[in-house]
Amino acid sequence: MTRVLLAGFAGSMGQQVVKLVKEMPSFEITAGLAHHLKSNDPAEYGLPAEAKLYTSLAEIPADAADVWIDFTVPASVYQNVRYALENGYRPIVGTTGLTDEQESELTELAKEKGLGGLIAPNFGMSAVLLMKFAQEAAKYFPDVEIIEMHHEDKKDAPSGTALATAKLIAEVRKPHQTAPEASESLPGARGGDYQGIKLHAVRLPGYVAHEQVLFGGKGEALTIRQDSFDRSSFMSGVKVALEKVQELDSLYVGLENIL
Amino acid sequence: MTRVLLAGFAGSMGQQVVKLVKEMPSFEITAGLAHHLKSNDPAEYGLPAEAKLYTSLAEIPADAADVWIDFTVPASVYQNVRYALENGYRPIVGTTGLTDEQESELTELAKEKGLGGLIAPNFGMSAVLLMKFAQEAAKYFPDVEIIEMHHEDKKDAPSGTALATAKLIAEVRKPHQTAPEASESLPGARGGDYQGIKLHAVRLPGYVAHEQVLFGGKGEALTIRQDSFDRSSFMSGVKVALEKVQELDSLYVGLENIL
Amino acid sequence: MTRVLLAGFAGSMGQQVVKLVKEMPSFEITAGLAHHLKSNDPAEYGLPAEAKLYTSLAEIPADAADVWIDFTVPASVYQNVRYALENGYRPIVGTTGLTDEQESELTELAKEKGLGGLIAPNFGMSAVLLMKFAQEAAKYFPDVEIIEMHHEDKKDAPSGTALATAKLIAEVRKPHQTAPEASESLPGARGGDYQGIKLHAVRLPGYVAHEQVLFGGKGEALTIRQDSFDRSSFMSGVKVALEKVQELDSLYVGLENIL
Amino acid sequence: MTRVLLAGFAGSMGQQVVKLVKEMPSFEITAGLAHHLKSNDPAEYGLPAEAKLYTSLAEIPADAADVWIDFTVPASVYQNVRYALENGYRPIVGTTGLTDEQESELTELAKEKGLGGLIAPNFGMSAVLLMKFAQEAAKYFPDVEIIEMHHEDKKDAPSGTALATAKLIAEVRKPHQTAPEASESLPGARGGDYQGIKLHAVRLPGYVAHEQVLFGGKGEALTIRQDSFDRSSFMSGVKVALEKVQELDSLYVGLENIL
Repeated sequence: MTRVLLAGFAGSMGQQVVKLVKEMPSFEITAGLAHHLKSNDPAEYGLPAEAKLYTSLAEIPADAADVWIDFTVPASVYQNVRYALENGYRPIVGTTGLTDEQESELTELAKEKGLGGLIAPNFGMSAVLLMKFAQEAAKYFPDVEIIEMHHEDKKDAPSGTALATAKLIAEVRKPHQTAPEASESLPGARGGDYQGIKLHAVRLPGYVAHEQVLFGGKGEALTIRQDSFDRSSFMSGVKVALEKVQELDSLYVGLENIL
Repeated sequence: MTRVLLAGFAGSMGQQVVKLVKEMPSFEITAGLAHHLKSNDPAEYGLPAEAKLYTSLAEIPADAADVWIDFTVPASVYQNVRYALENGYRPIVGTTGLTDEQESELTELAKEKGLGGLIAPNFGMSAVLLMKFAQEAAKYFPDVEIIEMHHEDKKDAPSGTALATAKLIAEVRKPHQTAPEASESLPGARGGDYQGIKLHAVRLPGYVAHEQVLFGGKGEALTIRQDSFDRSSFMSGVKVALEKVQELDSLYVGLENIL
Repeated sequence: MTRVLLAGFAGSMGQQVVKLVKEMPSFEITAGLAHHLKSNDPAEYGLPAEAKLYTSLAEIPADAADVWIDFTVPASVYQNVRYALENGYRPIVGTTGLTDEQESELTELAKEKGLGGLIAPNFGMSAVLLMKFAQEAAKYFPDVEIIEMHHEDKKDAPSGTALATAKLIAEVRKPHQTAPEASESLPGARGGDYQGIKLHAVRLPGYVAHEQVLFGGKGEALTIRQDSFDRSSFMSGVKVALEKVQELDSLYVGLENIL
Repeated sequence: MTRVLLAGFAGSMGQQVVKLVKEMPSFEITAGLAHHLKSNDPAEYGLPAEAKLYTSLAEIPADAADVWIDFTVPASVYQNVRYALENGYRPIVGTTGLTDEQESELTELAKEKGLGGLIAPNFGMSAVLLMKFAQEAAKYFPDVEIIEMHHEDKKDAPSGTALATAKLIAEVRKPHQTAPEASESLPGARGGDYQGIKLHAVRLPGYVAHEQVLFGGKGEALTIRQDSFDRSSFMSGVKVALEKVQELDSLYVGLENIL
């Protein structure tokens, strides 16, 4: 039985993790961390009756669990993960906000302690596989464009996942424009440009979060598409991370790197 | 039996029309017009042996056929259609290049002569139906974006069909931006804008000519897509025009208006 | 101000209607019908404070509202709509379960009373438009197949909407098989058959309710697709019905018939 | 400069290879094999003037080229490849018709001779990548269905590529039915079944050769799609094979195994 400490158990992502772990017979949440508690009763949060609830890092003993799952807030995540590693926990981190420097530092610390773990900005398996496959396909199909579709309230364009996909593709192909001479009668029609890769962002009500990568070659096309319909989609990736975390020999960044 | 005069029979579209008419039992090509002829033998062009070949308008008598199909060049089309109407032919015109003024003038002339006919910039049934349905759907789904995908050699963006679709949609909805506050970290990511309708143009090898209209509403989406794989696709629309031209009471512009 | 009586206001669809009407300035819910009430306070159900709550047909006076919206249960719907018409209400009915005979009878009664209204098995605008467009496109593209995708818990295949779409298409094309000689190395690979129209049903977790109609012609293809992501999608159709119900001159069956 | 012998240079696939090699500066066709020749002039087939043309295996010397590309016929392929290996050529084989036994035997022979090469039933890169990615994705998304779409003249259903994809997926997931209780009101609606994987085959005019693999998971979906628009699409895979063949240490079966 692998014991799990869940930091951020009262939040919406934390509650999804609670449900997930209940369905995994070899895992159990034995401890939870939350800065503010409405109740001291673990059952109020769907946790096992014997789970210990903590409201600060200092209260947490070194053997409360084997794995530390972190879905908290950017302001806490660095301290949390440092504390986890120093006390022998293997971290699985879905909280965003770590700088590149902090990631390096934590990776170094994990090495010293001989602990594996995972920091992942995106735990949606369909998004992670899309990025992985897109990078691989770009070696054979250098001509590629990205279309992402999101709900009308999304404020930034293109989405972080679309941009991350473009970066992965750019690593494996020579920068070039596919149709450099196309002229736009409506400015922006050809989309945004990242090193010659065009990105198009659609914003419409009804849509949730969707991404397509379109590859074209002589006489053929390859398209990879992912659809996220709701937040529960992130749990498939957390599940994979939990199943693999005990075998990881270092602290990885990116779910795709442990697949 | 309806008799057809085919102007531009030696061109690639003209040759498609030759094949089409052969498969329509109630129609026959009885005359052809081409400014330059490599051969005087109709069989060389796939035409019936008894078809008359002409190389100038002046040679063509008034009773050479019932219907005048025109797939020639922008420089000739106005004169051709005027000649056709003046001599009692019902025109079906796929040649582009008529100005709005010329269209009005020809429509007026057709009225005087009591002749019906059709001028259509696009004879692809899938494209024409897409435009028709898109306009109808926009009454119920005012939030809409357009994505078109073409081969890498297409020089203009967005495509004429995509822009024509946006114009049809704009006629039936109030101008508005769907996600006005979205900010672009890559300029152009949100696409080109026509009265608040975003248009995105993809250019990739392998692709031919494709268009999607995406509608979004609360909790649902509607998508209309058309794919043109080759030039033979235009013939479905010419066939419909031939079948309806005898009943048309005036000169229509746009295949969608006779459906 | 149009006054609305809402039968079934406590159910999940009823509660969606409550939200919808609040956003429509010219409409107001003035009365509600539900057989069992947990509370006599309209505010508990999101209704205006002055709305009257009834628990049986007999209690409802003839002038409680102008329009009767019915999202109740198959066992009640016939009696409800009959009562509505007899007492001068224009009905908008989303409850399923009326037989063809009952529909005819109610249509006749509406005629006698000079009342318009709508009975609609599907209020999802994207599904209704898909069916309408599919029927129209089939006149020009007689070769067509249908693919529907639903969540893994859906028990019947194909879906009611997919079958209804096939029936509409069958009305306007001659029955024929598109590829009659294809042999199946896996039985069922070519799908289910309705008068020569092939239907394919996909069942996968993650999916909600989606339908595609694929038309193919020489060198081109046309695809119409709709996605329903959640129940709120039905409200777009109820909104259209409310806006049009006062002008309807008879009792219509099918939202597509009042578009 | 790598020298290529092209067996089957006069056929339609052979002629595609001729065009491909012309565009690859480090490769040259130095010899060709065809059983019947209309002309002895290499230029008639688009080949370099100094290319040698042979009409039987016996005429071909051991040093006519480095690589043997084979696009011939099932009846010849085994003898051809055996001859190639025995005479020191590295084979790239696109001809179908080898039995499993013959493949094993040739693999053994290549080993003895210390020669690498490739036998590939499908050289379309988009189809090959689709199969590779589908197998990988199935480890994380065990619920999956396949839809393939082909022109109306295709006689078998499902397509060989779709079935090959299902087999690759079946290797990595436990056999199970995704929605076992779904009942079919139209027999075949749920598709063909290969070890619990449903396959759906669409046949429509206009379509060429297309395949989609649909994965569904909690709250998300992943779709991989490939489109083959014409035969030129196979050349991308032949190009990859040519670029890699000199480094291959044995005779591989399946383009995906050398990517």
